[in-house]
Amino acid sequence: MRIVVDAMGSDHHPEPDVAGAVMAARKFGDAILLVGDEPRIAAELVKHDTTGLSIEVIHAPEAIGMKDSPSAAARDKRNSSMHVGLRLVREGAADAFVSAGNSGAILAVATLRQTGLGRIPGILRPALGVVFPIDSRPMLIDNGTNADARPEYLVQFGLMGSLYMERMHDIHRPRVALISNGEEEGKGNQLIKETIPLMEASDLNYVGNIEPKEFVRGDADVAVVDGFTGNIMMKTAEAVAAYMGETIRKYIMAGTRTKIGGLLAKPALQRVRDQLNPDEVGGAPLLGVNGVVIIAHGRSNAYAIQQAIGQARRVAEKGIVSAIAEGLSKTRTD
Amino acid sequence: MRIVVDAMGSDHHPEPDVAGAVMAARKFGDAILLVGDEPRIAAELVKHDTTGLSIEVIHAPEAIGMKDSPSAAARDKRNSSMHVGLRLVREGAADAFVSAGNSGAILAVATLRQTGLGRIPGILRPALGVVFPIDSRPMLIDNGTNADARPEYLVQFGLMGSLYMERMHDIHRPRVALISNGEEEGKGNQLIKETIPLMEASDLNYVGNIEPKEFVRGDADVAVVDGFTGNIMMKTAEAVAAYMGETIRKYIMAGTRTKIGGLLAKPALQRVRDQLNPDEVGGAPLLGVNGVVIIAHGRSNAYAIQQAIGQARRVAEKGIVSAIAEGLSKTRTD
Repeated sequence: MRIVVDAMGSDHHPEPDVAGAVMAARKFGDAILLVGDEPRIAAELVKHDTTGLSIEVIHAPEAIGMKDSPSAAARDKRNSSMHVGLRLVREGAADAFVSAGNSGAILAVATLRQTGLGRIPGILRPALGVVFPIDSRPMLIDNGTNADARPEYLVQFGLMGSLYMERMHDIHRPRVALISNGEEEGKGNQLIKETIPLMEASDLNYVGNIEPKEFVRGDADVAVVDGFTGNIMMKTAEAVAAYMGETIRKYIMAGTRTKIGGLLAKPALQRVRDQLNPDEVGGAPLLGVNGVVIIAHGRSNAYAIQQAIGQARRVAEKGIVSAIAEGLSKTRTD
Repeated sequence: MRIVVDAMGSDHHPEPDVAGAVMAARKFGDAILLVGDEPRIAAELVKHDTTGLSIEVIHAPEAIGMKDSPSAAARDKRNSSMHVGLRLVREGAADAFVSAGNSGAILAVATLRQTGLGRIPGILRPALGVVFPIDSRPMLIDNGTNADARPEYLVQFGLMGSLYMERMHDIHRPRVALISNGEEEGKGNQLIKETIPLMEASDLNYVGNIEPKEFVRGDADVAVVDGFTGNIMMKTAEAVAAYMGETIRKYIMAGTRTKIGGLLAKPALQRVRDQLNPDEVGGAPLLGVNGVVIIAHGRSNAYAIQQAIGQARRVAEKGIVSAIAEGLSKTRTD
């Protein structure tokens, strides 16, 4: 297995990106292709013992930052680490691409065949799936690549999410639901209402509309919604979890007795934090592009990068891309 | 002040609805008009000491349940407690209407002049505002009445929310933001993109696009979005907060040491729970209808009903309805 890692991706690149790549090379025994500014990567690599590891550095003179406009960067920075890295996958020189960089830019570069991988034939729009780090590990798709979606897109998102969850999480016939503002008939916006009959007519294991409460409870394995709502839903979950954590800490620290209680309860609170750590479920797969792409959090540390690389190799191993191509031809999604 | 309370509203009606009405009559000294099934209301009332309180019971032979289709119920159940109660407000026999019932039905009945109050002249669509029980007490509007919205609606939601927060929360020139999937230019769905220039051209204190993180941090006083996304955002926040609370409890109870810690830290955890209790901020104002309507949570207890009544009387006192009518004529929102 040969995995491309964008060394210029994370908020603190190239440090965590390189460190995570070294950890992954050791853990999984794969060949890692680190793409980015060669001198900076080399300066990081010397900090690690890489004896016996297969790590190759490929120079890319440009880098796309978090502030870059995705479309402009995709068009103009043809020698960015993203462009160079995705070309390696397109040309068959690598099996997967991992980046903790600007997700809009990764999407833009990856989606066009000209700059990256292009779409799997028949896929209308790629979508970003995110597995939530809650007990039931449900996937929410799309998480922001299609702010405006159409019913046919949503059905394909359901198919892609379903194949991913089936193969990656060993779920037989994953339950696919639409996220809506109510389960009752007549609920939903125009998009959801128009998607329901398409879902019902598809071969997916469509279980109906669910609200966020049911999503959190685990009533579906794959919850489908447009990228605008999905992104806001995911970010609301993150923001509320962070807010609650901070508020609990603040109130515990406010009194001596509660502070002692907090100290004793610490292992339990730490367990909650560990469980809700998105790094544990890895990065977000960009599904529908013609190759394996995993987008890690911008604030990834080395461990998160290692996990994203582990996830990328599994996605490649499980043949998710060809499964989607086959699934599209076999499944009625229209 | 005369406040109508729907006795058939909450999940456990009429018990909490009547009990909350009695508490409010005592606390605020207002006249309460309890509308619903007279024998059932009477059977509840005898459980309370109502000496010296002004509580009137008005019989309504029908009730709209949580499972009723809002539009069908609005059309067919003309003698429901909602219909009868809202007519009292329309006819000037009462100053406000409070219900913990089916919010879709309240909206449907209230919005039509024929069955309820009708809209404030010039208002395109009423909207449900919800003040989040987090430190900064921001309002999210709309929370589900308009699953599909148009840019002009959103600007009016901003105006209504702004006037509400100014008068009810004493905020000078409330900061109005649009909820989006990113703050950068080019982010947002079509609706948000088309709303931005209207917001900029309005007289509102528009501060730009914000993500859920900034909303939770308090970067805006009024956050505007379509009712589909707003409803899902609110329900995601509720679901995640509940999930975190349960998970923390579960892990604390799993060990002796952490259990003792939890006991000592209990006051702090209780403080978090109290703070995040939506009852503290009251019900959701239905803004844009031609009268004061407060929608309380279906799972309201007596205290929550009392709080919603207290909120309703303040909305009436502060003249929010006429402020919106005036604001519309004075403010450029198109």
